[in-house]
Amino acid sequence: MPEHQRADARRNYARILAVAEEEVAAHGANASLEQIARTAGVGSATVRRHFPTRHALLEAVSHQRIEALSNRARELAGRGDSREALLAWLGEVVAYSSTARGLAAALAYDVPDPAGANSCSSTLEEAGGPLLDRAVADGAVEPGTSLADLITLIVGIVLATEHRPDPAAEANRLFDLAIAGVSPAR
Amino acid sequence: MPEHQRADARRNYARILAVAEEEVAAHGANASLEQIARTAGVGSATVRRHFPTRHALLEAVSHQRIEALSNRARELAGRGDSREALLAWLGEVVAYSSTARGLAAALAYDVPDPAGANSCSSTLEEAGGPLLDRAVADGAVEPGTSLADLITLIVGIVLATEHRPDPAAEANRLFDLAIAGVSPAR
Repeated sequence: MPEHQRADARRNYARILAVAEEEVAAHGANASLEQIARTAGVGSATVRRHFPTRHALLEAVSHQRIEALSNRARELAGRGDSREALLAWLGEVVAYSSTARGLAAALAYDVPDPAGANSCSSTLEEAGGPLLDRAVADGAVEPGTSLADLITLIVGIVLATEHRPDPAAEANRLFDLAIAGVSPAR
Repeated sequence: MPEHQRADARRNYARILAVAEEEVAAHGANASLEQIARTAGVGSATVRRHFPTRHALLEAVSHQRIEALSNRARELAGRGDSREALLAWLGEVVAYSSTARGLAAALAYDVPDPAGANSCSSTLEEAGGPLLDRAVADGAVEPGTSLADLITLIVGIVLATEHRPDPAAEANRLFDLAIAGVSPAR
């Protein structure tokens, strides 16, 4: 393939993935591949060449979101108040998880067992580790709390709210409750 | 049926249900009906006469546990420290939910959607309401927290931990974390 064609292909891939991410966030795993092609300004055949199956597309979207969240953790790691940085990041994980649940359900390794989320969890746990460590060192988080615990809480809250009329808002509210504590010791 | 036979039947029913509750707590929805009959000291035919299907048995066990938890809430409602009373009761709900998840999965109305737990939830919410109200009035719980929120947190934590090696211990630990707060505001 000549260089300019390869460059076109890379641009198409990136554009399709960006559009797919928005469509999946809006419509979950059932996002229309035709709509994605139209919005990206390419033909359905081009979408299919890059992503032969719906699963491949959803996996790429999921991978991209996990990467973005991991980069975000690294960005926040050295900045500002440690508690605020951790909570900002966890808030983004909640927001991602509550829109991505339908997506997760479409990925074979993630169905129907929430424990399957661990493949993504371990990447997140590693990326968020320094944020948590700094908050624990500052006394803002109970020592002994692990990032795996926080991800498990998030996964649980997302699973328990996914059938609500506004799952993202409910998940967010309940996670805030767990962060603040239902009833901290007096 | 003569009176003494009816009394025998009632005793058998109560004994089978008590044994079934223990077996289901220990082995989940796959508890052996034959083992239940043996431990209760009755024949399999007697078990089948009272509970024609496994579903009927599990439903009776579940109903009995929810009733027991509701009675426990009423017992605790007027007693001692309001925060301790609420947390003691919620701890019992966590313990019940983490052993009863397998049971819940066997009940048609509860499968595979955790939202189905609502049939039991509403009974629990009503029973636990006074415990929560007293704790909120005492300033021990953030105003605006509903019992539905607490049950949703519990359901989520149970769902997110059900595949762990020791689900009940993990659920309990994470619920304690949510009660104390991951990071209460300073």
